[in-house]
Formats: sequence, structure tokens, C-alpha cells
Amino acid sequence: MKEMILMTPGPTMVPEDVKKVAGAQPLHHRTEDFYELFSNLNKNLKEIFKTKNEVITLTSSGTGGMEAVIANLFSTGDKVLVASIGYFGERFYDIARAYGLDAELQDFGWGNAVDLDVLEDKLKNGNYKALLVTHNETSTGVTNNVKEIAKIANKYGVAIVVDAVSSLGGIPLEMDEWGIDAVITCSQKCLMSPPGLSFVALSERAWKMAETSNLPKYYFNLKKAKEGVLKPNPDTPATPAVSTIMAVAKATNMILEFGLDNVYKRQANYGKRVREYVKNLGLELLPEEDIASDLITAIKVPEKYKASEIISHMKEKHGVLITGGQGPLKGKIIRIGHMGYVTEEMLTKTLEALKDATEW
Amino acid sequence: MKEMILMTPGPTMVPEDVKKVAGAQPLHHRTEDFYELFSNLNKNLKEIFKTKNEVITLTSSGTGGMEAVIANLFSTGDKVLVASIGYFGERFYDIARAYGLDAELQDFGWGNAVDLDVLEDKLKNGNYKALLVTHNETSTGVTNNVKEIAKIANKYGVAIVVDAVSSLGGIPLEMDEWGIDAVITCSQKCLMSPPGLSFVALSERAWKMAETSNLPKYYFNLKKAKEGVLKPNPDTPATPAVSTIMAVAKATNMILEFGLDNVYKRQANYGKRVREYVKNLGLELLPEEDIASDLITAIKVPEKYKASEIISHMKEKHGVLITGGQGPLKGKIIRIGHMGYVTEEMLTKTLEALKDATEW
Repeated sequence: MKEMILMTPGPTMVPEDVKKVAGAQPLHHRTEDFYELFSNLNKNLKEIFKTKNEVITLTSSGTGGMEAVIANLFSTGDKVLVASIGYFGERFYDIARAYGLDAELQDFGWGNAVDLDVLEDKLKNGNYKALLVTHNETSTGVTNNVKEIAKIANKYGVAIVVDAVSSLGGIPLEMDEWGIDAVITCSQKCLMSPPGLSFVALSERAWKMAETSNLPKYYFNLKKAKEGVLKPNPDTPATPAVSTIMAVAKATNMILEFGLDNVYKRQANYGKRVREYVKNLGLELLPEEDIASDLITAIKVPEKYKASEIISHMKEKHGVLITGGQGPLKGKIIRIGHMGYVTEEMLTKTLEALKDATEW
Repeated sequence: MKEMILMTPGPTMVPEDVKKVAGAQPLHHRTEDFYELFSNLNKNLKEIFKTKNEVITLTSSGTGGMEAVIANLFSTGDKVLVASIGYFGERFYDIARAYGLDAELQDFGWGNAVDLDVLEDKLKNGNYKALLVTHNETSTGVTNNVKEIAKIANKYGVAIVVDAVSSLGGIPLEMDEWGIDAVITCSQKCLMSPPGLSFVALSERAWKMAETSNLPKYYFNLKKAKEGVLKPNPDTPATPAVSTIMAVAKATNMILEFGLDNVYKRQANYGKRVREYVKNLGLELLPEEDIASDLITAIKVPEKYKASEIISHMKEKHGVLITGGQGPLKGKIIRIGHMGYVTEEMLTKTLEALKDATEW
């Protein structure tokens, strides 16, 4: 198999130094070496989540982290509002329904962001226990204004849960300062590591909600996981994906050495460059530019092309993997991921491949 | 960190060729390369599980696989019997209780195997929907006679769920032929790979039970996962731990090339050698020899030693990591894992280290 440049919404490219760690002999998870490594990871995660609360490491996809939050914070019949702007908003709704919550889907439309006025109206009158919202919707390349959304939720005493699976460590998210109650992310997007881990942080209020939750949980029991994190020799209730923990510890060291603010700057720059380039090619962005994501760009496919042809041209001829649309956008858009470990060279190569694929 | 020889109940040693794969750039999970790899893995797993049914790959620890079976097969209040012989039997009971099953714990004692007569008596009169049992109990170094246990369960029409987390691919387990309804295993024990994946296979009867289950599940929804496996281009509902899938595909190729029967023979030989050596040192095994595991050996710690001292002597002086006891056996036993990727050299070095540690 030849190696592709993955410009997808994840898995993303993994830096050499992180791959080296991921391919080492896994440590045993009840040893000093592991405790030290896990302490280091936990410290890094708190910095990246911008929280003083503990961050829980789960061996699962990001979806598992989302489920963990639902199963731990809520009880059967709890009324929650899911503010959806695409595929992953709908997934959050599906999880909430699977767990018997009284979940209401407020669909703002694929390609739009959450409308703050409409949201405020809903929250003012809705008597919701919580609001579930996606920070960065990879299916549409839209970033929600979570800072303002959190302000509104807090104004009405509604807990706010943020799916930051594709955004955390790439664009600003201030968990504590913005008053967010639960944040979920995963290893294989902005954290530059192989997939297999999700990370969850809860506010004090959310930990209190967890006290009264009646939903079944064992593997995803966050309270039990927190006890492990708080030990002098921190560990996990079950054998974790040690190699991936080793990888994320390394990757988060790299991110923090580079500096989170520098990451944010780089992403803002990448986002802008991609959008400029796309427009110069005469192509159209799916979302309005003021809500367009700096992590992934969704581009409308002009009538004379087929999405699948652009994608396979870029793949076969240039070794660059991008993705198409999901759900209602299947065949209508292409998506270029530029989150996580993306060098200038990768980005340039991708844009040139896009140019080539839309000119042949 | 210096590399240890892990002679533990997992994570176990990972062969060089498997580490190389685990440390490669993760494939994107919606590509031809991945579909081919996942098809290969699924084929291998069916051979190792000895089943014609599909094997489901979950991104989780073995515990997640156990939970998946509980959440998918049962409904609130279902009566199940947990035949426990140690730590992981009790874990199965805890999961069943967390999900609101009417679970009964039949404790056969740490260091014993399931007593077939007692079990038959229970199943005959108990009106249980299912029996949950551990194949190889790593906490005590005991292997249950699952073939006979399954016979009894089937005699009384009781579904049988087997935790084969530490046994599958190391000692014989014939899922279809023995009439087992659910088998769970994971990546980091006999399958010679890093931790992070569990694998679950269900019988036709179990898939039927899944139709009526009322317990909440989304991430661990086995039916949905099965649909993914059955696609011409097989995939998973959420982004899986691709690197670990790549690793297990490689490792299972190696196992099947070597031959499962040869693995069983090697393990039988290793088990016998360790037990002989231990007895020659004047040490005592925890279990009776006819139920002793060929994958992990539990040894009573003589009064003049401390378990922790033996363990740290072997670790510091010989670079061999073994483990101590759990629960009621803490401080009372030491455990030498010899499952998965264990070479003659590793085994010899371990036994010599044990000799040195019990003679100083």
C-alpha cells in the first residue's frame, strides 16, 4: 500500500516522532513508566482543554466519548436540545435518543451555523436540562460560535455539552472561561495521533449531574475513570490503548512546545489560504465565509464535475486523499481537511492537486 | 524508558513486524486499502474464533466487548447466572448488574474452576436466560472446561456467553462446535497486538436475542456494526483504531501461518514447562494442576518472601515484568503470563529470573 497524504476529517497525518512512539512496545499499564507518561498526558490535556478539571481518557472513538457524556450526565426522560448543523449533530441526537432522553433536534441546516437568536428563543422557553452542540461540523466545514452559544446557555441555566471531536487543539476553545460543562475530543484529528482514544472533561456542575444519572454505564463510567486519574499513580479502570496514549502524550508535548496560540494562528492562516485558493479557482464554498471552518473546507462541486472524479483524480494522480459529502451532501461537495499535522508542503501539494483535478 | 520483557496478563509482547505496522501512518478507514485489510482481518478472526458467524471489531478494551454483549443480548431484569472463578468473573457480574439484569453470582472460589455438577444443578433449576463464564481467569491462572460447560448450558437451553479475552488464539475454543452463543476477546493478549480493540462473535441464537434487547446502546450497537462488516467494502460505524486493526491483521496472519494447532501445542508446552520449573524450585502453584492455565501461571508466595520483592527483583535485575495478585490474592501470589508472543528465550530468561528472585 502506498502512503497517501490524508487531507481528510480524520484519521489525519501522524508526525514521524509520534508514529515512532505508536510503534514501540506498549508499556504495561501498571508500571512507573506508564504512570509518569499518563500523568504527563493528563497535564497536557488540561492545558489543551483549558480547564482545571480532570480530563478522562477513554479507549474508544470520539463517538464513544459522546456516548459517555450522555450516559453519565443524564437520566431517562431528561429534556435536552440538540442544536444540529450536520452529520455529527444528528449523531449526538441519535445517541441521546438511544439512551431514552427526551431529545429535541433543532436543525439549523447543513452548511449553516447555529443561529444565536433562534437558539436563545428555544432556550428561554424550553426548560431544557442541557444543550448539545457541535463545535466544528466536519460534514459541512462550519464552525459554531461556541463562546456565544455557551453564554446563552448559561444565561438560562442550561448545561452545555460541546462535541469538540474535530476542533480541540486546532481552534480556540476555552472550556472553563466560556462556562462549558462537557467537552469531548479524540486522538486522530487536531491531536495528530492514531485513532482509538477519546477524551472527556466535565465541569463541576456536570460532575454533580453525574451523581444523579440513572443510565446504565460500566465501561464508560466517568466517575470511576476519574478516580483512576486522581490516584498518585494514575491509571484507567480497564487496560487502555497504551500505544495510543504513548502517541498522544508525545503529540501533545509537541503541540504545547509549539504553543497553542501558534497552532490557532497556523490554522487560521491555513483556512484563509484554502478559501482564497478555492475562490481563485472559481469554485464556491459551501458555507458563508464568516462561519467557514479553519480546519476543514467544504467546496461545492460545479455541475460539470463529479465529486468522485475529483477525489479519485487527486488520489490517483497526486497521492492526496480528500473526502466527499455525507448524507444530503453526498455527491454535492468535496471536503479538504487541513487540521492536525499539516505541513506547508502538504497544503501546497493539496491545493495544486485540486487545481489540476478541476481543470482537466 | 528501558524495554522490559512483559510476562504479564497483557499488554503482552508485540512482535517486530506487528510493531512496524502499528507505527505506520494510519490508513483512512473509507479507502480500498482499508477495506481489503479489514476483510482480511475479518476472515482471520472467523478462523480463530472457529465460527461461520461474523466477528465484530470494537474500538475498546476487552471490558467494552463484555459490555457490548450484555447491552445487545439482554433486557432489563433478564435472569442470568455468572459462574465466577475470580476477578474477571466478578467484573462480568458487575457489568450485568450495572445494566439492570437480574444477575446471580455463583462464586466457585478464586483458584478453583467451575464445578460442573454444581453448575448443572443451578442451570437445571434456575430458569436462567444465559450463563456468563470466563474461559481463562488471569487473576488465578485457571482455565475452565468451557466445552463441558457449554454442553450443560445447551442441555438446559441456557445461552452461554464466554469471556475469552485472555484465551482466544492461545488455547482451544470451538465457538460453533461447542455451541457457544457469544465469545469476546481483545487485541493485546494471545493476538500479539497493542491494546485498543475487542472482538465479539455471536451465534444465530444470540443475534435473535439481540432483536428484542431493550438496553440502551449506540457505540456498542452490534447489529449496526455487523451491517458494516457485511458490506462489500466492510467498515465500522465510527472511526476505528485503524493502526491497531492494521496490527491485528498482521498478527493474525502470522498466527494462521504458524497454525492454530501449533500455537495450542506451544502453549501447552510452555504451561507444562513453567509448572515443572516452579515445582522444582520448591514453589507451589495456586490452582490444582489439572485446571492450571497454559497461558498464565499463578504461584503462591512462600512466607519468607514478599510478592512485591520478587516482582521488583525480577524487574530491576532481569528486566522481566510479571505481576502480583488482585483482590483477595493481593500479596499472596505472583503471576507469570506466557501467552501471545513469547519466545523460548523470553521464557528461559523469565524462569531464570524467577529462580534468582526466590533464592537471594
